[in-house]
Amino acid sequence: MKGWVEFLKRKSDKPIKITEVCLRDGSHVMQHQYTEAQVRRVARELDEAGMHYIEVSHGDGLGGSTLQYGKSLVDEMKLIEAAVDECQNSKVAVLLLPGIGTVHELKQAHELGASLVRVATHVTEADVSAQHISMARELGMETLGFLMMAHMAPTEKLVEQAKLMESYGAQAVYVTDSAGALLPQEVKEKIAALRNSLSIEVGFHAHNNLSLAVANTLTAIEEGATRIDGSIRCLGAGAGNAQTEVLLSVLDRMGVNLGIDIYKMMDLAENTVGPMIPRAQEINRGSLVLGYAGVYSSFLLHAERAGQRFGIDSRDILIELGKRKVVGGQEDMILDVAAELAKARKLEV
Amino acid sequence: MKGWVEFLKRKSDKPIKITEVCLRDGSHVMQHQYTEAQVRRVARELDEAGMHYIEVSHGDGLGGSTLQYGKSLVDEMKLIEAAVDECQNSKVAVLLLPGIGTVHELKQAHELGASLVRVATHVTEADVSAQHISMARELGMETLGFLMMAHMAPTEKLVEQAKLMESYGAQAVYVTDSAGALLPQEVKEKIAALRNSLSIEVGFHAHNNLSLAVANTLTAIEEGATRIDGSIRCLGAGAGNAQTEVLLSVLDRMGVNLGIDIYKMMDLAENTVGPMIPRAQEINRGSLVLGYAGVYSSFLLHAERAGQRFGIDSRDILIELGKRKVVGGQEDMILDVAAELAKARKLEV
Repeated sequence: MKGWVEFLKRKSDKPIKITEVCLRDGSHVMQHQYTEAQVRRVARELDEAGMHYIEVSHGDGLGGSTLQYGKSLVDEMKLIEAAVDECQNSKVAVLLLPGIGTVHELKQAHELGASLVRVATHVTEADVSAQHISMARELGMETLGFLMMAHMAPTEKLVEQAKLMESYGAQAVYVTDSAGALLPQEVKEKIAALRNSLSIEVGFHAHNNLSLAVANTLTAIEEGATRIDGSIRCLGAGAGNAQTEVLLSVLDRMGVNLGIDIYKMMDLAENTVGPMIPRAQEINRGSLVLGYAGVYSSFLLHAERAGQRFGIDSRDILIELGKRKVVGGQEDMILDVAAELAKARKLEV
Repeated sequence: MKGWVEFLKRKSDKPIKITEVCLRDGSHVMQHQYTEAQVRRVARELDEAGMHYIEVSHGDGLGGSTLQYGKSLVDEMKLIEAAVDECQNSKVAVLLLPGIGTVHELKQAHELGASLVRVATHVTEADVSAQHISMARELGMETLGFLMMAHMAPTEKLVEQAKLMESYGAQAVYVTDSAGALLPQEVKEKIAALRNSLSIEVGFHAHNNLSLAVANTLTAIEEGATRIDGSIRCLGAGAGNAQTEVLLSVLDRMGVNLGIDIYKMMDLAENTVGPMIPRAQEINRGSLVLGYAGVYSSFLLHAERAGQRFGIDSRDILIELGKRKVVGGQEDMILDVAAELAKARKLEV
């Protein structure tokens, strides 16, 4: 495996940094019902294992605790404070989606000790992140850009948007595969393009809906991505993310040691996180269809309802929505698409 | 994605054939308690979806129903007969490990309608398969070789052993990643070497212990493997195999249609197989450690006991066993290794 390590070294000379996202992305799975005790225990054990960054926020980022996105059991600021309190070495990160969270919440999180922020926008809407990125830099936070639903944009568009985030002051830009829809060769192309076009670091955030999260992450690392997300026990939305303890074990097998204790991560997954998860993070029909169609997880229930109403398989609706690159906020399109499909089917008969 | 399809075509002109292994490899997970009704329903629905081959046998192959390997609830011959009875188009396959199963059981399975057999040996012991392969050919069965624990042999050794199987009359040879320990670049090397050295087809059987089963299978297909195994809902030993309905969805996204109905496979996974499985097939500490160490799943419990007795982490024992390439039947080595590690640790202190 030595050849592989040499290869890694050639594509980027920066160290690989892992962000554990189970306390943010996993908040969706927990239906935003994390208790302070849970967050404290997970953060403490991650810190003891040597995790680099721990992201703590509502699943939809700062300010996400609303009727629309799901009310948090415990105020995220209290959870951020608790995580910071438990960490000796790990840094606490937050997620901010402009439009959901505001600069006000970002300042508050920073005052409580969060030292890194990922400012996230849809892959074609980087321009809405300018103010937030610049404010985060002024606060002295490590500031990264997060281009969500990256599979929806051609690579040239992705590069253009990443350059915008770089120009606003982002210190890295992530390819964020929100729907778990990217195939390895697409990851390769997108990461390589960003690495060649940006002077800042490149990151990768996977979802496992097509069972490719760990493999896609390896591809991203091979192509020079150095900011890498994972969720322990796959505790993230949909089918989860790159399973952190698995990813670290594979990298170790390849001779890449990131200074994180693998045994401690395995124990944390088995004894702390596993028993906490309401349902095992296997790939079921729902998560598979989301990855296959390349759509938001929130579309699933809407499509099932629309399918019943129009007598159409919800999967056909989701696939059509994916083709049309329908995004969050356009949920009214779901009924339209179902009606169109039903009409087209009638014409066929 | 068109480039990828072209690429596939270049490496092999044979069609890709899928074998669903949940009724054999999944028998381990079911603790060999499959009922005839379960086998009938799964076989019928797989047949309706257009599955190419359905493997039905005890988890350890024909004749495996013993105190040592676990008693089957229902005689496997009855299950084979039931599956054959349900199938209009799918072919029923069996697994045979010389030493566990005999030519006698093979003949019986053939008479009941099984038309394909995989004759399986440890990766360095192909020579024990000569009689069984030749008998299967005489019976007129499609006869494939299965080289298990393929990660334990260097590629040259694997090629040598595959050539033996070819010389006995095997019509394809599988790289069988029994422990789910192979990394993508190792799969690439091994499949390419077999494709270049054999005139028969090459197959690949993955396990998901390192979350790489689907990705490794894509790599194998890319390198020209045409006989591919999967288990629906990941219902196979350890962390399961390449999850069949996921693999088919990914191939479809790449423009590769194998004539198997993806929606029917998704429904079968969700409505029939999912509710049947005693525990979700997520990657837990046990399955991860097996893949990381590259050892047999049966070693896990032994290593835990030995670890307790000698005050050693069972993972250190398993990793050492993997390094020494200890195989099934050598379980007495586990205590020896534990004792050695304990002694070495004492000397260090």
